[in-house]
Amino acid sequence: MRTEVRKLKKVKLRSPVLVEGLPGMALVGRLAVGYLVEALRAEKFAELYSPHFPYYVIVDDEGRIRLPRGEFYYWRNPDKGPDLILLIGDSQAQTNEGQYEVATCVLEFAREHGVKTVITVGGYRTDSGGSRVVCASTNRKLLVKAVEAGAVISPPGSPIVGIAGLLLGLTNFMDMDALCLLGETKGHLPDPRAAKNVLKVLSKLLGIEVDFRGLDESIRKADRIEELLSEVEVGELLTGEAREGKRTGPRYGYIV
Amino acid sequence: MRTEVRKLKKVKLRSPVLVEGLPGMALVGRLAVGYLVEALRAEKFAELYSPHFPYYVIVDDEGRIRLPRGEFYYWRNPDKGPDLILLIGDSQAQTNEGQYEVATCVLEFAREHGVKTVITVGGYRTDSGGSRVVCASTNRKLLVKAVEAGAVISPPGSPIVGIAGLLLGLTNFMDMDALCLLGETKGHLPDPRAAKNVLKVLSKLLGIEVDFRGLDESIRKADRIEELLSEVEVGELLTGEAREGKRTGPRYGYIV
Amino acid sequence: MRTEVRKLKKVKLRSPVLVEGLPGMALVGRLAVGYLVEALRAEKFAELYSPHFPYYVIVDDEGRIRLPRGEFYYWRNPDKGPDLILLIGDSQAQTNEGQYEVATCVLEFAREHGVKTVITVGGYRTDSGGSRVVCASTNRKLLVKAVEAGAVISPPGSPIVGIAGLLLGLTNFMDMDALCLLGETKGHLPDPRAAKNVLKVLSKLLGIEVDFRGLDESIRKADRIEELLSEVEVGELLTGEAREGKRTGPRYGYIV
Amino acid sequence: MRTEVRKLKKVKLRSPVLVEGLPGMALVGRLAVGYLVEALRAEKFAELYSPHFPYYVIVDDEGRIRLPRGEFYYWRNPDKGPDLILLIGDSQAQTNEGQYEVATCVLEFAREHGVKTVITVGGYRTDSGGSRVVCASTNRKLLVKAVEAGAVISPPGSPIVGIAGLLLGLTNFMDMDALCLLGETKGHLPDPRAAKNVLKVLSKLLGIEVDFRGLDESIRKADRIEELLSEVEVGELLTGEAREGKRTGPRYGYIV
Repeated sequence: MRTEVRKLKKVKLRSPVLVEGLPGMALVGRLAVGYLVEALRAEKFAELYSPHFPYYVIVDDEGRIRLPRGEFYYWRNPDKGPDLILLIGDSQAQTNEGQYEVATCVLEFAREHGVKTVITVGGYRTDSGGSRVVCASTNRKLLVKAVEAGAVISPPGSPIVGIAGLLLGLTNFMDMDALCLLGETKGHLPDPRAAKNVLKVLSKLLGIEVDFRGLDESIRKADRIEELLSEVEVGELLTGEAREGKRTGPRYGYIV
Repeated sequence: MRTEVRKLKKVKLRSPVLVEGLPGMALVGRLAVGYLVEALRAEKFAELYSPHFPYYVIVDDEGRIRLPRGEFYYWRNPDKGPDLILLIGDSQAQTNEGQYEVATCVLEFAREHGVKTVITVGGYRTDSGGSRVVCASTNRKLLVKAVEAGAVISPPGSPIVGIAGLLLGLTNFMDMDALCLLGETKGHLPDPRAAKNVLKVLSKLLGIEVDFRGLDESIRKADRIEELLSEVEVGELLTGEAREGKRTGPRYGYIV
Repeated sequence: MRTEVRKLKKVKLRSPVLVEGLPGMALVGRLAVGYLVEALRAEKFAELYSPHFPYYVIVDDEGRIRLPRGEFYYWRNPDKGPDLILLIGDSQAQTNEGQYEVATCVLEFAREHGVKTVITVGGYRTDSGGSRVVCASTNRKLLVKAVEAGAVISPPGSPIVGIAGLLLGLTNFMDMDALCLLGETKGHLPDPRAAKNVLKVLSKLLGIEVDFRGLDESIRKADRIEELLSEVEVGELLTGEAREGKRTGPRYGYIV
Repeated sequence: MRTEVRKLKKVKLRSPVLVEGLPGMALVGRLAVGYLVEALRAEKFAELYSPHFPYYVIVDDEGRIRLPRGEFYYWRNPDKGPDLILLIGDSQAQTNEGQYEVATCVLEFAREHGVKTVITVGGYRTDSGGSRVVCASTNRKLLVKAVEAGAVISPPGSPIVGIAGLLLGLTNFMDMDALCLLGETKGHLPDPRAAKNVLKVLSKLLGIEVDFRGLDESIRKADRIEELLSEVEVGELLTGEAREGKRTGPRYGYIV
């Protein structure tokens, strides 16, 4: 088995923008783009499989099984703005070469559908959290647009790790522009508030109206978990484990 | 050397079911399917070799040497039920890509022999052990059959790691159905009792009569080891190592 | 994506010498060759990309993004000496095979441009630092030249790790000669003084005049940091971590 | 660069036996076969290179540089016994697949030269050392011969790790027989005494007369180091590091 996209449906789109939200830091991208899929009632039209995804399968609510995968959804813009291709999934690739291979495969699929702009969504870790959306781009104009929509430019030198970064880097070879939107987060728990912050910038940038109230219940839940954990962590800090995020990392990092 | 099946004998089978039991969690699958091979007097007809198996060789009782490998056995059903292909072996692949490659190779071999149904057998770790058999499937009908034979449906979200899971996930691309039967186990020692529990469900599901009394001596031995260890572990718990299973994991995990 | 050189400009050079300075021990090579690029106003004419570089992208001063890469610069010698190809970049390959692949790709590019001599630059770790430049070569004559230029011959048996070493080893198959110049360094911080020491030998060897005063400010800064750290480290030595360089290694090792 | 043998000289041999002694446990194989190369004045006729060897180069006594490699030597038997191909080198492959690839490459080279018998030499770790030579084989007759020459048959179930094992396992597919001779050793230091023990069995088995006195000086040195270390280790045992061989492993494991 190779890294490959399996098409479920033939779709022709109008100057579509690819928005990527695979699981990463605090699941910000996964939560944001996953919410978009639901809010826009986007339709799945392809799946990406790879031997670089982890070697397990996932059991769904009815005891059915499937491989970890990426899922491509499309949404036809009823107004004159661009159509969307939304990418969410279960995992990122597990090795260096795997990351390059999956990112290349995603971009080739995007190019086939006429994508000229790629937007990746993720989390930006800061010790104190924060509510800003940090952006970086391969293209000055796109960067300015993101700033106008409310983002702040990333400080230089900071690496953007994983597919959210690689997709941008690789567009340089593919006649596409790309933008990265990263929501500030403390990073040790799934962070729907950071996801909402990113979605505000993203929807403004794309000229799409989305009702974000559906995320508020998730935000309240996350706040309660955070509160509970802050009590527990006093004890854990004695062993230093909590700082390194060993507990939450793997549990939330792969399966959604 | 590539991952490949070496055929020892040409065999034509009647709508065979593949039952996989490579070493994994508490060796449940290896013990169960290995017992089946003996009880049914199944005959070996092929071996699987791979550079993704660990780089050592195994010395047998007479000082002879061989590579780690998978072994395919066949059994002709004297009644009207399906024939069986039984897969046991020394090890699983050691890397992510290796796991995908070996699982794909197994399924291609199965397809050549007309297999339409794959059943994988393994252990399901719970802190308190238990005697249930957990199932998951790519196919609703197969799942119902497993439940009728005494299994309970797996809770959603729990990943099934290794070849027992991957074989199921990959059948989605191969016009086969697949079922996974996992015996509950504490998971830190080879667990013949869990193997017996799985075999009860499996034999009922397949409509095959197997005498399980041969496993009872192994179960008694395992109980004695468990007892002895439970005394030792009081001391070890002070260092925390026993919980993580560092001691027993690698020793039993690879060679059988 | 494969490991590949992307040419920005077609350039014909006169018996050019390749000088490699990718990031490694104490960044000595990166600092030395990077300084040479600036001091000689060398011009970039090609970039090397590889899926073996780490899977992140780098944000520059203006929020723009790019993949980690190697950069080839050329410099035309106004005198009768050889032209230069200078290689600097963000990272070395992350795996064993990746290191071989990137090094081979560099040498093939060099060969295309008629390179017959390769010089790699790096750091040589000693507990007490030191100001010597250690050399080793695939060719006796080149070694003698380096010694005449002020270097001392490397003690036998010591391995030269990474691309600075591999490039030399691989030239044996490519009708090229190669020399390695390693500046002594304590190795736990970027070391511009070691870089200056190497440059003195290198410039003498190549018969090029370079003004090294531009490095003196960096040296003063590094000295101040060293001083500050020496106070802090008294405490850290109690845990033994400082000795192993765990703290500074990754921080400085990859991004420049 | 691929794993490949580079031939230095065309050689035709009379039913040669391949004897492998790459560095491994306590360097027993490397010391034994290296001694044989010198004692028999065998001549080098080929080298094996691989991107699976570690990514560094080695500096020789005169400041010259080369990649890690395997070296094939041949020796023409003046009597009616078999000629020999002796394999020594700097390192084993660093990954699972690399181990399989290098071992396969060695056997293909051997087959080209008409090799029908492969003997691998290494160390066999026991807590108390010992002076026995443990053997295992793919062939009953060869095993009996080794026992007649003084070896004892390996206990079943014990894995033989690395190329000394893989070469045996892989001959099963290549119309060759293979034998493994492992000298008992405590395993935490290079062990010339174990090497001598193996050589006694090997020379008897091959019907070759070799003067082993040249190893006695090395044995005396090793004994002195052992003595010194036994005093030091009392202190180190407090941290438990000495047991795991962290200190000596890497230093002796790769470069000889």
